[in-house]
Amino acid sequence: MSEEPVKEEKTCDENCDACPSAHQCSLPKALLQKAKIDVKHVILILSGKGGVGKSMVSVNLAFALANHDRKVGLLDLDFHGPNIPKMLGIEDKRATVLGKGIEPIYAAGNLAVMSMAFLLPNTSTPVVWRGPIKMSAIRQFLNQVNWGPLDYLVVDLPPGTGDEALTIAQSAPNVRGAVIVTTPQDVAVMDAVKAAKFIGKLNVPVIGIIENMSGMICPHCGSSSDIFSRGGGKKAAEDLGVPCLGAIPLDPEMVKAGDEGRPMILQHTGSPTGKAVDAVMENLVKLVEST
Amino acid sequence: MSEEPVKEEKTCDENCDACPSAHQCSLPKALLQKAKIDVKHVILILSGKGGVGKSMVSVNLAFALANHDRKVGLLDLDFHGPNIPKMLGIEDKRATVLGKGIEPIYAAGNLAVMSMAFLLPNTSTPVVWRGPIKMSAIRQFLNQVNWGPLDYLVVDLPPGTGDEALTIAQSAPNVRGAVIVTTPQDVAVMDAVKAAKFIGKLNVPVIGIIENMSGMICPHCGSSSDIFSRGGGKKAAEDLGVPCLGAIPLDPEMVKAGDEGRPMILQHTGSPTGKAVDAVMENLVKLVEST
Repeated sequence: MSEEPVKEEKTCDENCDACPSAHQCSLPKALLQKAKIDVKHVILILSGKGGVGKSMVSVNLAFALANHDRKVGLLDLDFHGPNIPKMLGIEDKRATVLGKGIEPIYAAGNLAVMSMAFLLPNTSTPVVWRGPIKMSAIRQFLNQVNWGPLDYLVVDLPPGTGDEALTIAQSAPNVRGAVIVTTPQDVAVMDAVKAAKFIGKLNVPVIGIIENMSGMICPHCGSSSDIFSRGGGKKAAEDLGVPCLGAIPLDPEMVKAGDEGRPMILQHTGSPTGKAVDAVMENLVKLVEST
Repeated sequence: MSEEPVKEEKTCDENCDACPSAHQCSLPKALLQKAKIDVKHVILILSGKGGVGKSMVSVNLAFALANHDRKVGLLDLDFHGPNIPKMLGIEDKRATVLGKGIEPIYAAGNLAVMSMAFLLPNTSTPVVWRGPIKMSAIRQFLNQVNWGPLDYLVVDLPPGTGDEALTIAQSAPNVRGAVIVTTPQDVAVMDAVKAAKFIGKLNVPVIGIIENMSGMICPHCGSSSDIFSRGGGKKAAEDLGVPCLGAIPLDPEMVKAGDEGRPMILQHTGSPTGKAVDAVMENLVKLVEST
């Protein structure tokens, strides 16, 4: 009989409660149950590349659904750059604890918002978190925010196919699908196709693709310049066999709306950009309401 | 004497070898030693918000340093959207293993490049990784790529203050500092300030801030439009007490250069944008060479 000590078993037995490293584990399998949030449809807004306009789409879609008398939650999952509150002009609000849960901030009577920004001391505090802590925070945002019963939860994700996107796709109930935002430039479209394949692997359908920054109208001469090229989003949608929800131009008016906390969809300016946003959002509402 | 079983100790003893969850741990402390890469200066390119031009800055800075006869490595740490190879026109190359290491791809005789894109079967394959796996991959890129002795390693990071930025700042040797890229719009500047505070917490100095997409020249009428506003990067630099390295306009020529794999700095077009890129890169080279 050998006198070698029995080697310790190093594989995961999925019993997180007995594991000394559960609090810093990337795959706490026992925690991957669906979160307890009362919502009929969860819609994920994602992109491959950053800076393509995900938050602008999230904000305008949330208001479009709220305007259709739906009870809507808007969840900002960009922990490192939580810009949704700034885009709604509510960046100075702070979340409060009520009963057993956190109270969301209301941007309208039927539109509740939650963001890391509401939990930070000020707008310049960085969130220096690794993946597993973000995973735990996402589950808290789903389970412990007093959302009440929701028709829709619109989730604004950071760019890419990392921890945040994986966690929400796996732990949110009733994920209706993902909207992928891209600019028409090659590198953004390439990353949008990656994002579509990623979400497909998680068995989440792509609701459609939005082409943002599609041409720019010069405020001086009124000519259109295809600064980030044009048509890339439409082509990606065709290649992937998913709907193209429309194109939105790059417009200083839109950037200003974001910086000033006044979503385009509420402004009714009648400008070409305003009309484009309205049309894309109506396409999207029709698609998600049709099931 | 109590008959209660002794409770298992659940705190980390920093002995990763004996821990059953080390392979999926977010904080494997024993692995946080400095990587064995022979490099004099590591320069991190980061931002708070995505899509502000980090990769453009990384590519042009790497060539600027190479043009000064330095031996340069360019490391693309955006696993989910590795766009550096596309911007250099080498996205079809695949990395090979030579000896005990991975061979980088050479964009010039003295400019070696490594990116996740060189290890994927094609450009549309997504990388669906959580933080701890990315941490391990970053250490492999530092330790197991045949970089040879380098004067500079320029590191292109994904947006934000998450796993990739934390891991490289903690495990790369000789981190000279970070360059922060922003557009002038409020939300991007807000996130740039967060990024500066984050990197300060890790004791990495900010080399300077670059304001990208600072005004746009209409190709039809030649007028300049402040599409993303103007001056936000300069103001952030003043507020943080760090150098402003200059401003680069938004220019369809630049977007085309990126999509076609021909960095601006190699083109010598004499255009205002080309001159702005040259000036920013020379400022940066002067600053990093001065120590």
